Amino acid sequence: MFSEENLNEIVANIAENYSNEELFYMKEGHQMPNRSSIIHIIMGLREIMFPGYFDKEHLGQSMPQFFLGHKLSNLYRELAAQIRSAYYQQEKCGINETEIREQADKICLEFFSAFPSIQNLIMKDVQAAFDGDPAARSKEEIIFCYPGLLAIFIYRFAHILYLKNIPFIPRIMTEYAHAHTGIDINPGADIGEYFFIDHGTGVVIGETTKIGNNVKIYQGVTLGALSTRSGQLLRDVKRHPTIEDNVTIYSNSSILGGETVIGKGSVIGGNAFITESIPAGSRVSVKNQEITITEKQSTKPDSLFD
Amino acid sequence: MFSEENLNEIVANIAENYSNEELFYMKEGHQMPNRSSIIHIIMGLREIMFPGYFDKEHLGQSMPQFFLGHKLSNLYRELAAQIRSAYYQQEKCGINETEIREQADKICLEFFSAFPSIQNLIMKDVQAAFDGDPAARSKEEIIFCYPGLLAIFIYRFAHILYLKNIPFIPRIMTEYAHAHTGIDINPGADIGEYFFIDHGTGVVIGETTKIGNNVKIYQGVTLGALSTRSGQLLRDVKRHPTIEDNVTIYSNSSILGGETVIGKGSVIGGNAFITESIPAGSRVSVKNQEITITEKQSTKPDSLFD
Amino acid sequence: MFSEENLNEIVANIAENYSNEELFYMKEGHQMPNRSSIIHIIMGLREIMFPGYFDKEHLGQSMPQFFLGHKLSNLYRELAAQIRSAYYQQEKCGINETEIREQADKICLEFFSAFPSIQNLIMKDVQAAFDGDPAARSKEEIIFCYPGLLAIFIYRFAHILYLKNIPFIPRIMTEYAHAHTGIDINPGADIGEYFFIDHGTGVVIGETTKIGNNVKIYQGVTLGALSTRSGQLLRDVKRHPTIEDNVTIYSNSSILGGETVIGKGSVIGGNAFITESIPAGSRVSVKNQEITITEKQSTKPDSLFD
Amino acid sequence: MFSEENLNEIVANIAENYSNEELFYMKEGHQMPNRSSIIHIIMGLREIMFPGYFDKEHLGQSMPQFFLGHKLSNLYRELAAQIRSAYYQQEKCGINETEIREQADKICLEFFSAFPSIQNLIMKDVQAAFDGDPAARSKEEIIFCYPGLLAIFIYRFAHILYLKNIPFIPRIMTEYAHAHTGIDINPGADIGEYFFIDHGTGVVIGETTKIGNNVKIYQGVTLGALSTRSGQLLRDVKRHPTIEDNVTIYSNSSILGGETVIGKGSVIGGNAFITESIPAGSRVSVKNQEITITEKQSTKPDSLFD
Amino acid sequence: MFSEENLNEIVANIAENYSNEELFYMKEGHQMPNRSSIIHIIMGLREIMFPGYFDKEHLGQSMPQFFLGHKLSNLYRELAAQIRSAYYQQEKCGINETEIREQADKICLEFFSAFPSIQNLIMKDVQAAFDGDPAARSKEEIIFCYPGLLAIFIYRFAHILYLKNIPFIPRIMTEYAHAHTGIDINPGADIGEYFFIDHGTGVVIGETTKIGNNVKIYQGVTLGALSTRSGQLLRDVKRHPTIEDNVTIYSNSSILGGETVIGKGSVIGGNAFITESIPAGSRVSVKNQEITITEKQSTKPDSLFD
Amino acid sequence: MFSEENLNEIVANIAENYSNEELFYMKEGHQMPNRSSIIHIIMGLREIMFPGYFDKEHLGQSMPQFFLGHKLSNLYRELAAQIRSAYYQQEKCGINETEIREQADKICLEFFSAFPSIQNLIMKDVQAAFDGDPAARSKEEIIFCYPGLLAIFIYRFAHILYLKNIPFIPRIMTEYAHAHTGIDINPGADIGEYFFIDHGTGVVIGETTKIGNNVKIYQGVTLGALSTRSGQLLRDVKRHPTIEDNVTIYSNSSILGGETVIGKGSVIGGNAFITESIPAGSRVSVKNQEITITEKQSTKPDSLFD
Repeated sequence: MFSEENLNEIVANIAENYSNEELFYMKEGHQMPNRSSIIHIIMGLREIMFPGYFDKEHLGQSMPQFFLGHKLSNLYRELAAQIRSAYYQQEKCGINETEIREQADKICLEFFSAFPSIQNLIMKDVQAAFDGDPAARSKEEIIFCYPGLLAIFIYRFAHILYLKNIPFIPRIMTEYAHAHTGIDINPGADIGEYFFIDHGTGVVIGETTKIGNNVKIYQGVTLGALSTRSGQLLRDVKRHPTIEDNVTIYSNSSILGGETVIGKGSVIGGNAFITESIPAGSRVSVKNQEITITEKQSTKPDSLFD
Repeated sequence: MFSEENLNEIVANIAENYSNEELFYMKEGHQMPNRSSIIHIIMGLREIMFPGYFDKEHLGQSMPQFFLGHKLSNLYRELAAQIRSAYYQQEKCGINETEIREQADKICLEFFSAFPSIQNLIMKDVQAAFDGDPAARSKEEIIFCYPGLLAIFIYRFAHILYLKNIPFIPRIMTEYAHAHTGIDINPGADIGEYFFIDHGTGVVIGETTKIGNNVKIYQGVTLGALSTRSGQLLRDVKRHPTIEDNVTIYSNSSILGGETVIGKGSVIGGNAFITESIPAGSRVSVKNQEITITEKQSTKPDSLFD
Repeated sequence: MFSEENLNEIVANIAENYSNEELFYMKEGHQMPNRSSIIHIIMGLREIMFPGYFDKEHLGQSMPQFFLGHKLSNLYRELAAQIRSAYYQQEKCGINETEIREQADKICLEFFSAFPSIQNLIMKDVQAAFDGDPAARSKEEIIFCYPGLLAIFIYRFAHILYLKNIPFIPRIMTEYAHAHTGIDINPGADIGEYFFIDHGTGVVIGETTKIGNNVKIYQGVTLGALSTRSGQLLRDVKRHPTIEDNVTIYSNSSILGGETVIGKGSVIGGNAFITESIPAGSRVSVKNQEITITEKQSTKPDSLFD
Repeated sequence: MFSEENLNEIVANIAENYSNEELFYMKEGHQMPNRSSIIHIIMGLREIMFPGYFDKEHLGQSMPQFFLGHKLSNLYRELAAQIRSAYYQQEKCGINETEIREQADKICLEFFSAFPSIQNLIMKDVQAAFDGDPAARSKEEIIFCYPGLLAIFIYRFAHILYLKNIPFIPRIMTEYAHAHTGIDINPGADIGEYFFIDHGTGVVIGETTKIGNNVKIYQGVTLGALSTRSGQLLRDVKRHPTIEDNVTIYSNSSILGGETVIGKGSVIGGNAFITESIPAGSRVSVKNQEITITEKQSTKPDSLFD
Repeated sequence: MFSEENLNEIVANIAENYSNEELFYMKEGHQMPNRSSIIHIIMGLREIMFPGYFDKEHLGQSMPQFFLGHKLSNLYRELAAQIRSAYYQQEKCGINETEIREQADKICLEFFSAFPSIQNLIMKDVQAAFDGDPAARSKEEIIFCYPGLLAIFIYRFAHILYLKNIPFIPRIMTEYAHAHTGIDINPGADIGEYFFIDHGTGVVIGETTKIGNNVKIYQGVTLGALSTRSGQLLRDVKRHPTIEDNVTIYSNSSILGGETVIGKGSVIGGNAFITESIPAGSRVSVKNQEITITEKQSTKPDSLFD
Repeated sequence: MFSEENLNEIVANIAENYSNEELFYMKEGHQMPNRSSIIHIIMGLREIMFPGYFDKEHLGQSMPQFFLGHKLSNLYRELAAQIRSAYYQQEKCGINETEIREQADKICLEFFSAFPSIQNLIMKDVQAAFDGDPAARSKEEIIFCYPGLLAIFIYRFAHILYLKNIPFIPRIMTEYAHAHTGIDINPGADIGEYFFIDHGTGVVIGETTKIGNNVKIYQGVTLGALSTRSGQLLRDVKRHPTIEDNVTIYSNSSILGGETVIGKGSVIGGNAFITESIPAGSRVSVKNQEITITEKQSTKPDSLFD
């Protein structure tokens, strides 16, 4: 063990850091939303949306009203508490406790009322995955196993909360998806129906991206900004591309820029790097990357291979 | 809390969705394999294969027969139950409960009998990682820490179950690896000895890929299909490439297409995008990407930088 | 259940593997560091560094000395035990138990004494993220949600232990970060102040990489080696690039090679593949990838699209 | 560690015990009810009966139908499974699997239908405790803290299952109460309304006891059999006393024998030992126990005191 | 599963019970103290009082101030929250939320300030147990294993809260002890120094009992009330005996009545039933219980034996 | 929260207590046996002895050797560690670490070697319970539910460790039984075959008690010492009675004194208080307790009833 003096010194130095930088603490009475609670809410949403897969008790089938009524009440209670926490934490929210409570209730009601239509939306995403992936053996497999569906599922709920300006929670939700799938969809992105992400690791979909219906993207695709040099000045500016209906973007391609539009029905081949708009109906392929093929027995040493 | 009317309406709408779409529920008496159980089985396999690393009790060393006999019996019981679940769940499996039980037992026996040889195979993968990574301090470090080895470990077991047409379980296994390592190896891929994946995040190895012995690949490598436009019609068609013995594929390269063959001993440099076969002994490098280097002080504004 | 003969045979074969390969077991009395313990230590470091976010009890605010003194004592006890385990496990450590204990205590003291300055360093990383990401709503969001910050946080502690030649533990720490963020920073890398990784999935930063101050990198960036063909012979050779101050590297670019230097203030656009040094103040962009755009209605069949 | 020979010998000896005595194992496919499940059922019953005290989520208050519907469905599923287990386990149950399933469902329905009236019954027990204990500050305290009420609560449910000849489960329930309260009420006892047990440790109420309404008993009271010398021959014979309405039995008294009747309104003082009937309206007190009081300074040594 | 009608009917009946009896629910915004929290507080008190035994981390030894400061802060936070809950729940507490908060803080401060002297008091109880029990091998064994000490330990803290009129919490504490030890000490009892309870199962010490210094009692001893017929009218009346200094009461004896005084230095032998005062220095023994000894071969049948 | 001064003062006072009384801490490097570990060992013993009841995995049935070998190895490892802890903790154990290790191994071997015979012994206790309790429906019920059997089970193992002079552990074991059953059997007691305790709450069996074969006792029976006035001077003196073969002792009777012998085949009726020997073949009954029966309508007030 270190000596008491050593410990006291380290303690004093860290405590001084605390006192020099107010960021280390929440304001009195405030606290961050609880990450475990939000993950629990996500799990609850999965049980409600796909009870045959994620609800261990299989109670919804014969008398779904009890199952649903109870689960929804529970979820409401848990989410409303987290929304209130998030509001408290938000700087300059400028509303008092009663208003926060009313606001949280109002938002919850709107959020919950959207569940039936979100559910239908997600079922369309399942269909898109089944149609788009020859390796999919069944829709059940997609619902139960596909990371792309999980990321989209979580995004669809987080996006509604984002639109209602709830701080922190939408991002905590999508970062949960990011950690589990490697797919980073900013909750601000605007994504249409029948969306499919295959494999998905490394996909990044930026905050102001707009995606139409029937779009399919693969692992490593970035829908990103061109330059972020201006930092916070760019907040709320459209920095990410628009992908129109029926577009396919193969793996590891990057589409960058807020004014870049990939026109309807285009197909972007793998490894493309696109910073300008592409007209509808295009096929973009990296045909000639000036790849050099040499024989291995070459006498010329080459740092890439030897 | 929302009012009783609000809640009733939401409940009714979701319940109607349930009744309109049979996918939400399992058939009577059926259920999905249990994901926690399958993860538990993976953990059990690690304890059996590398008892000094993952078996907390260190019991196998002096009298391994008791340790092994007990662990294997336990694993058998747990896996057989999951295989039965998976069969029940499979559409049109067309066999009755007794046949399912016999079939599950038969498959388990074959699966377990393969363990000693899989164990040797994995030890060769450890050797390949040690030989291939200068940052590896010891083989113990590889066994204990390397995500690439974890992904290959899980794949090697999942592949056997895939070959026996067990539904769901192989995919649940490899998706577990995918979530933890960012490496997505479809259990259908056919992979030889001494296989090494370094770093690994973003690697995708498609269902009909064939990989020879002594192959090394890096993060972000896709061994994928060219187009999936025909969707389910492509099921069971060879859509992914063949990588012959002694090939190295550096980071972020893509090799696409079922007829694409990377010949023996070839080395594919980073960021290559390959849709056609490469002869044996080739060295493929992206020599000239037409990279433009300008000075930053350039007066011409450039959306990529300013 | 399989028969006793089947089980006995499988047991015997695995036991034989054990006896043929000493790698399966630790030496008498040795054991690997405990992964759960090390993750617990990481969680403890987060509580100490950002008590308002990760310390559930919010005790540090009014009287931080008790909170800190207790948490640090606890952490010390836990880390010292893991360091001792790691030493035992290390081959040829050539020191006896008392020396190991003294050595572990000495290293712990140095490690803990660095906490106040690491804390300041991480706060600069938070600032860099806030300045660099228009989507960041607040610094709190960065501290609480950003995977890039988590990876850097863990790296900064692991790096100190790496410099002290502690086996296993630094790698277990960074692989934890890798699994949760898709960002693989080798603990040996040397990284300056104000470092920001955005999105981050697929980032690889090799062992001998050197990164200056104020550097920003995006998802999919590899700072890697050219060829690893010589394997273990390359150990401790500088194999990874040097990135000077104020450099930005956009997504999916690769900078490879131990002699490759990206000069001060350069900006590397997305998807670049760089194996040679770039002078200070450069802007590197992939301007012409020879992308071919064809209309979809083309009659020529193309395996990439049809 | 002991040697392989030692271990083998111990193993062989225990295994031989197993093979000599069939009691060690269940019959093929059978198993005991799951104790944890039954305790979970008891907890569920408490939540349903007193939702304001034992239901953490406080959901029943505004819309009890969802809370109740869901909790009851869950409880049904869990209890029915345990009843089926118990039946399988019972020797000579002589009914097949389908009959067992039907029988379990029938019993569950009857059991659950009794809940509303049991609930009222228990509320009367609460009233009796409040009226009978000057130390009770409120009825809430009784519901939340009194071990006597917990024991009666569990008994009232277990008794119904006992009457339906469910094996094992009623006893597991009352033994749970016994372990937690020191009050051992056999589920076969027949107990009226407004029953109060104060303090309760050491109370034993035998299987064939009959207790009227408004009875109050204290710690250490035994309502037992006279002699059990005939063992299993006495099964189903009335061996325990009858306590009529409005009787109070003070602490540590014993009332023994199947023909012993404590008449209406009698009061039995503490430490009484009664093996014969007592007429209605009696007051029984231990007036003279021939207690000897000597001064401590007595010169006569006395093993009880010196 | 039962039918929807069955379930609806049961639900409706229970819901009707809820609406007929307000006791089932807490008032709006109120809730019972959390039993798990209170048990956690008891565990915390044990760690603080006997850190070498119950604090797993053994941190208090070298630098107790950090250990203590942190543990006490934690305990304060947890207990204050429970006290506030208990106040809310109390009927007619007639004070508003701010007053409750201030009151809870004031009481906590007084409670915590008493810890050092309670600690000394408990050490005297340990001494009394060691002096009084020949089977005690060491004081460590008493601290670590003796149920009597656990019950007294909990009582000593609960009593302070009782004196401060905290509702529910003192009783929850002593009922925890009761469940674990079979010893039921009402938190209202007034107990002196050097108190020892041996074995303890079945001991009952009533609310208005007064016990002097150096008293020793055994299992099954009741210090109780004479008659509780008047129920709530007796609240706050002295109903339980006074035991003066240096008294020993052997097993299963009952001392009843608020005016009954056992004089200084008396010894009450086992199985005594005492409802009147005993002068100081007495030895009370049950000398002649009119025990009848007959030979077993007696021809006269006897229901007690045959 | 209390102020820093308040907290500092309380901390200082408790810390001073610590420094004044060495009992609060273990000696350097020592620690108490781990209670959870010992409970885990008890659970392991139950699984090994009655695998069909307490081993959830039901693996022992078909191939018990693996199940047993593994469980026993595990148990050995866990118990040996606890025995070493207990030795370290014991004052004046006067042996060094190597001797402690050897001693612990030797004792473990002897302890484990006794398992087969203990198992047979316990099966006889099951038989005794079945023969002695008309309420027992089956032997399975006794094994699975009867607290008396649990207490005897634990005693039989603890007794062996007591005989080997292991400190702390035997007592921790029997106090676990005491807490769960209300039956307090000192591990030093010497108890024969076919022992049955019915109901059991409040039973106390002292350290130097000797009990023959075929003995049956009921709840509340004390086999105790006469006077413990001489405290530690009585250590190792025979203070508790001898109960010869075939004796039955009914509920709440006390048999006290080291020279008190209950002769073979005697039957002691309920509530007897016996401090002298009873010849073989006696029947002891409390025939006349001078019970007074008055009518309730009596005009004379009586504190016991009014």
